[in-house]
Amino acid sequence: MQMEKHSELFNEIDEIVHPNSIALVGASSRGRLYWLKSIIESGFEGAIYPVNPKVDGVMGIKFYKNLLDLPGDVDLVIVQVPAAVVPKVVQESVMKNAKCIVIFSSGFSENSEEGAELEKKLVKAIRGTRTRIIGPNCVGIYCPESRVSFRPDTCMEPGPVGFISQSGGHAINFAIVGKSIGLLYSKVFSYGNACDLGSPDFLEYLAEDEKTKVIGMYIEGIKDGERLIKSLKKATEIKPVVVWKGGRTEAGARAVASHTGSIAGSAKIWDAVFEQTGAVKVKDFEELLDTVSVFVFCPPTTSKNLGLVSISGGTSVSNTDFCIEEGFNVPELSYKTREKLSKFVQSMGTSVKNPLDLAGSYNYPGVLENVLGILGEDQNIGSVIFDVQVQYTILVEKLADAQVSKIIYSGMLEGCKKIRYQSNKPVLIILPRTFYEEELKKVRNLFINEEFPVFPSITSAAKALRNFIKYNKRKGE
Amino acid sequence: MQMEKHSELFNEIDEIVHPNSIALVGASSRGRLYWLKSIIESGFEGAIYPVNPKVDGVMGIKFYKNLLDLPGDVDLVIVQVPAAVVPKVVQESVMKNAKCIVIFSSGFSENSEEGAELEKKLVKAIRGTRTRIIGPNCVGIYCPESRVSFRPDTCMEPGPVGFISQSGGHAINFAIVGKSIGLLYSKVFSYGNACDLGSPDFLEYLAEDEKTKVIGMYIEGIKDGERLIKSLKKATEIKPVVVWKGGRTEAGARAVASHTGSIAGSAKIWDAVFEQTGAVKVKDFEELLDTVSVFVFCPPTTSKNLGLVSISGGTSVSNTDFCIEEGFNVPELSYKTREKLSKFVQSMGTSVKNPLDLAGSYNYPGVLENVLGILGEDQNIGSVIFDVQVQYTILVEKLADAQVSKIIYSGMLEGCKKIRYQSNKPVLIILPRTFYEEELKKVRNLFINEEFPVFPSITSAAKALRNFIKYNKRKGE
Repeated sequence: MQMEKHSELFNEIDEIVHPNSIALVGASSRGRLYWLKSIIESGFEGAIYPVNPKVDGVMGIKFYKNLLDLPGDVDLVIVQVPAAVVPKVVQESVMKNAKCIVIFSSGFSENSEEGAELEKKLVKAIRGTRTRIIGPNCVGIYCPESRVSFRPDTCMEPGPVGFISQSGGHAINFAIVGKSIGLLYSKVFSYGNACDLGSPDFLEYLAEDEKTKVIGMYIEGIKDGERLIKSLKKATEIKPVVVWKGGRTEAGARAVASHTGSIAGSAKIWDAVFEQTGAVKVKDFEELLDTVSVFVFCPPTTSKNLGLVSISGGTSVSNTDFCIEEGFNVPELSYKTREKLSKFVQSMGTSVKNPLDLAGSYNYPGVLENVLGILGEDQNIGSVIFDVQVQYTILVEKLADAQVSKIIYSGMLEGCKKIRYQSNKPVLIILPRTFYEEELKKVRNLFINEEFPVFPSITSAAKALRNFIKYNKRKGE
Repeated sequence: MQMEKHSELFNEIDEIVHPNSIALVGASSRGRLYWLKSIIESGFEGAIYPVNPKVDGVMGIKFYKNLLDLPGDVDLVIVQVPAAVVPKVVQESVMKNAKCIVIFSSGFSENSEEGAELEKKLVKAIRGTRTRIIGPNCVGIYCPESRVSFRPDTCMEPGPVGFISQSGGHAINFAIVGKSIGLLYSKVFSYGNACDLGSPDFLEYLAEDEKTKVIGMYIEGIKDGERLIKSLKKATEIKPVVVWKGGRTEAGARAVASHTGSIAGSAKIWDAVFEQTGAVKVKDFEELLDTVSVFVFCPPTTSKNLGLVSISGGTSVSNTDFCIEEGFNVPELSYKTREKLSKFVQSMGTSVKNPLDLAGSYNYPGVLENVLGILGEDQNIGSVIFDVQVQYTILVEKLADAQVSKIIYSGMLEGCKKIRYQSNKPVLIILPRTFYEEELKKVRNLFINEEFPVFPSITSAAKALRNFIKYNKRKGE
């Protein structure tokens, strides 16, 4: 942390995500010790103070009757007591010089008029103090670097992805599902009703944070639209911000009101905000995940020319259709490239024109390594999408009774590395649904370990790449 | 088989898919014995005659030098010799009174002018005989009932799905991926260049076949458009036909020409064909699979009113958005239903308005069973979409150190059964991507065993249900 060159807001939030001590108010055995276990299993190394007047100790850990009983001040307070008791806990947290209170409890503005009044009390209680609130109705912070997490099973290796989510569920899902496609996180914030700190604050923080290279967001509603627009503009000048807006429809907006007590706003206005600020708009969870993954794992390109590779003619046809419909080109390859390719691809039942249908050649040792490398070198090709169908390779192994799959997979990886390191172009790996799920997982991990982005379908890869290119064009990269 | 009431074409193809003997011409050890192993491992009980002049025997099975050397006639001949030799094999097959020749070999009209000439020779050789050709450039037949398959690892339990695919790869993928979501097949045909038998023939056959309840199709091009339209019209009057057209774009059409030597035709004309015939149009492999699955596993409905259930407010919001954008309604529930629901759902952090956000109540034993049942009873609800996120249930188990997940999953199943059997409404299960893939597979199998349709995302479920409702409305069901 080089605090001197940062804004005050940055320093404030950076201290919040790097606490020296955490108090867990309402930690109970009835609640399955969710928070206590999350903090302990994430490996937090500072002081942990569970607070519950009815519990003496669990798992060999001393419980405190009251926040005020703690031996000293506390940096972060996580609250899971009933809504009516929360204002008292906030007051006590202020007295203990807490830097931040994460309010997990719900029953505030998302629930009723009385809840909204209660929420106002919370804000009043911290006004003029150094204490900030995240929530209520949220899961708060996940920061691998400081070993703080809202789940006991998140990956604690830090990485380049920052995520800001009004929904606790989406924050958790993003962190957990991201693990399976190789995404590593810098900081994740879930902020619920946003009675104090909200999306513009976290956005400004992550924009300044050198450890965050890509920002993802899930927003339901916003109190200060002008400030969000300003923050979005500023952030997208520094790094990509991928935004998913929930509550685009009337019924969705009704769900938003029940969920975080927010006003969703019109979809048209939000579209204008994205267009104006250069934020990358996505429409669902899958597209958010996939788009962030392209930003993390691919070198920039503005070319819409794709090279497509698969084992099957049918897949070649349909992958081409979908990419064209998403606005890409699938140009015929140069004569020179085709000539080079035909040295490795048999002439019957295949095509080396682009899309590349490798058919029987796909599973011959040495073929994929060379074919992918040659394709990447063609100057008409901007990115390569490689459709890996494990059900064919697993069959070769089954029939030939040999460890051929190992050679084939390592050839695939070598080929993809050539595209990335020799030609400096994006390569996207499609690993479609199959019956052979264990094999799929094994192969996916091979690609993830080498930091290639993996996708469950051509549709997901093409949408993500389209978003990536649009951003790069705007940035003039 | 009650042949007397069927058309001649039906009887002809039905005999082809129920052969008493199969000859495999070109079976070689170099080719990893793909075809021989496929037929043997599928459990085919008739005579198997591998033919290869250079091989005496493999795996204890006698090889024949020539088709003409076989002890008697042969019903089905599968050919994998080089294109130039195929005409001779076809002549010999005719002499052996073959009912059908499946030509796996490629190098015909999809490849070159000479290949196209060669293909014409094949047709000439069978003209006026009882022998028919499937292919060339195809994988032919998969029929669990007669234990004939184009792969050694397809499921041999028969079921209600018929599939017709111009692409061999898509036929294989459909069969293999379908296994993972509980689809069982009656007959699958891959027909490649379609020099003789083609999509209208198989369509007419499957329309007449009582064992086929739903037909899926992947078409690249068609020679006799009028006949296809007639067959489609006739078939959709009897059962749903879900069609995916490959080669909708110019580059896709180029790939089609390299793949099956077909002319793709304009996307507009194809759209008109679908509209006119009532065939259900889908845009990609995923949508084909998902739509067929709804037809197989759901009772008919024409209602666009959905009940949505999930554990998270964020998921509730985004699932609602997506369903509304796909043309569904997510109506507020009646006061009576909400009153019933609130007996099982805690009041804080949840919503019982629709979408149902169950939050902490989701993982309480007894809740899902009752909530799903009550939701299904609401007369304003036509179908239920239930988003099952295993990462929450697995965590409860982890934290509580008990076998709670078993109780929760069985409650889910009971609730879904109530919707189906007591309220006779479709229920669609979303099982999104997660890090916990083994748990996901386990839970998916629970639902598949009870014949519920499962989907990887809300987008896939909503598209499939939309296609289903459109078909039912047209049929007036």
